[in-house]
Amino acid sequence: MEKIELPRGFKVGAVSAGLKKNGVPDLAMILADSPCSAFGMFTQNHFPGEPVKLARERLKSGKLQALLINARYSNVATGKAGQDDAVNLCRFAGEKLSIPENLCLISSTGIIGRRYPEGKIEAALPGLIESLSNSSESMQNTARAIMTTDTVPKMRSVKVGDAVITAFAKGSGMIAPNLATMLVFILTDAELTSEECEESLRPAVNTSFNRLSVDFDTSTSDSVFLMASGKAGKVPYSEFQQALANLCVELAEDIVRDGEGVKQIIDCRVAGAKTQVMADKVGRSVINSPLIKTMITGADPNWGRVIMAIGKVEDEPGLKGCAPDITICGVTVMQKGEPLAVDLNKLSSSMRSDDRVLIEINLNLGSFKSRWWGTDLTAEYVSINADYTT
Amino acid sequence: MEKIELPRGFKVGAVSAGLKKNGVPDLAMILADSPCSAFGMFTQNHFPGEPVKLARERLKSGKLQALLINARYSNVATGKAGQDDAVNLCRFAGEKLSIPENLCLISSTGIIGRRYPEGKIEAALPGLIESLSNSSESMQNTARAIMTTDTVPKMRSVKVGDAVITAFAKGSGMIAPNLATMLVFILTDAELTSEECEESLRPAVNTSFNRLSVDFDTSTSDSVFLMASGKAGKVPYSEFQQALANLCVELAEDIVRDGEGVKQIIDCRVAGAKTQVMADKVGRSVINSPLIKTMITGADPNWGRVIMAIGKVEDEPGLKGCAPDITICGVTVMQKGEPLAVDLNKLSSSMRSDDRVLIEINLNLGSFKSRWWGTDLTAEYVSINADYTT
Repeated sequence: MEKIELPRGFKVGAVSAGLKKNGVPDLAMILADSPCSAFGMFTQNHFPGEPVKLARERLKSGKLQALLINARYSNVATGKAGQDDAVNLCRFAGEKLSIPENLCLISSTGIIGRRYPEGKIEAALPGLIESLSNSSESMQNTARAIMTTDTVPKMRSVKVGDAVITAFAKGSGMIAPNLATMLVFILTDAELTSEECEESLRPAVNTSFNRLSVDFDTSTSDSVFLMASGKAGKVPYSEFQQALANLCVELAEDIVRDGEGVKQIIDCRVAGAKTQVMADKVGRSVINSPLIKTMITGADPNWGRVIMAIGKVEDEPGLKGCAPDITICGVTVMQKGEPLAVDLNKLSSSMRSDDRVLIEINLNLGSFKSRWWGTDLTAEYVSINADYTT
Repeated sequence: MEKIELPRGFKVGAVSAGLKKNGVPDLAMILADSPCSAFGMFTQNHFPGEPVKLARERLKSGKLQALLINARYSNVATGKAGQDDAVNLCRFAGEKLSIPENLCLISSTGIIGRRYPEGKIEAALPGLIESLSNSSESMQNTARAIMTTDTVPKMRSVKVGDAVITAFAKGSGMIAPNLATMLVFILTDAELTSEECEESLRPAVNTSFNRLSVDFDTSTSDSVFLMASGKAGKVPYSEFQQALANLCVELAEDIVRDGEGVKQIIDCRVAGAKTQVMADKVGRSVINSPLIKTMITGADPNWGRVIMAIGKVEDEPGLKGCAPDITICGVTVMQKGEPLAVDLNKLSSSMRSDDRVLIEINLNLGSFKSRWWGTDLTAEYVSINADYTT
């Protein structure tokens, strides 16, 4: 990882607003010196949180200047009162920052169905604004404030010409206990229009965050923001797009690796599909299968489960009778649909020896590919998730 | 449960063929005195086992007389050699029974990708045929022989007029370790055509076995057979259909309750859906969600997870903005989309107090309903599945 620095034109900060216990940072802010070109991508859940609904509406302008971010309360399923809470907090932040309220957004993660505790965020806001800076300490505090069951703060940075792209992420899986949610904030000082933000972010997200899963549940608050301050001027656009896509893949791996109870990650590479949709469905089916996940947990070279997971994909009749190649940790266990004789004990050792288990599948039907990231399933995942609000 | 008796016109039996360890019964047979009207329903997996492929082909005749059933080897993903194995074993059984080979089928459960051990089933066949009877002991042995990780044998019986319907089932979930599979064999002495077998079995399976899930994986060998000997003559047809449907629901609950590591089952009742498909998708999403499952494990009244699970249903835009009622263990936590104040500690106690957790959802969009059965997710499930073939 390169040294993390904040792109020009941004300040960040975090304080404890008393939302989490023990006085740890739980409220963060990202503030740009002037309105940024911006684009956001959000959860596909039919019941998005109020912060997500407000962001969808306001980002139609393509402009964003301030992001207030809190942990512990997601403001989801809170009815009309929760909707007002989101609008009122953005208005309050705008007043304190002396910027238009419609350039302010809030991004929240935490328990569903509970309103923000009255007055706590408002009371903490002046101190939060005072804490804003581009120092390394402020960046660390910001990354920590947005953590829920994450065990490590997640930041990544990359240079493109004179510009920098820096991202803060949280997520202990696509969904963590009680929808702890994936939130990603990507800042750059490259000069981009809001259309270019969209054009760069969509494919980057589709080949990274949209292809990972810890538990195949979909949070009601998942959000990825890209804000471009323009302070570094124009950079080669295709270079920017590539750098952004790589950064997202790195962050996606960070998130999966920090998944709840995760010991090993699954790196599933599907090739030879007839369509992109087929490649994606197969990859998703493999990484989400509990029997594949427990096969990794047990370093059990029970490759029949891979066949099962490919075969259970729905609405893809083209898969019927396909004769795949399957390779696990570099060992080919099936070729053109016929099982090969392999040393299962040796394969089991290989599966145990690395923190990444590579599963390669060639469907031998066409030329489409897809790469997906998943995790093992451990008893620790169960205990983390069995007892969260109580 | 009524006393279990075998319908007239059938014999069953089981022996140890040395497939499982320790000399326990692992090979069973169901034999009818004469050809039965029959119908079968099988896995939707794109890679069905060779026994499933052969059954699909031969049952086109609507006739079946003998079923050979083995555990430990599923004969899935075994290539051309495995295909020949299935045909050869049926031919061999037909010869020994002096009946046409195309009235014989084999039904298998066990590890994928390994052939039946050479000669073992053939060698055990004479003893198996000798063991056939309609005694209670033979029935018990048969139910035990088809178990894999099942902890209890599963048989159910019901009377319809003069006729009896009796079923043998195995399944420790829709899928057990290494696809241990759900197999169900339903026998009756009611007089039915093969068309009536189909017409009765389809709806019964759709409202029972197709609506349960332990881990949402789909075995490559799942099979449900219905054989009607006709020895009891005609019975009121609608009464037969209702009795069969009820029997299947009872067996479905037996299977879920015996799921791997299962302590509590989820009984999810969806109402108020705009279409049957929507009702089914919502029910399936709820019982398959790891966060709902762990919420049950922890007796955690974290009802936001139910919202999440409804909201993540794909390709149902009608769900957007729906205002559901949600009731858990009789306590309404959300009404028309607005959260209600509830005593969460009391609700947690209710969730812990019964081995069945009832989740009722009214989508308030229409009049379609669906009932689904699922399970909690325990650390025991993980350990059962993490170490199976090795």
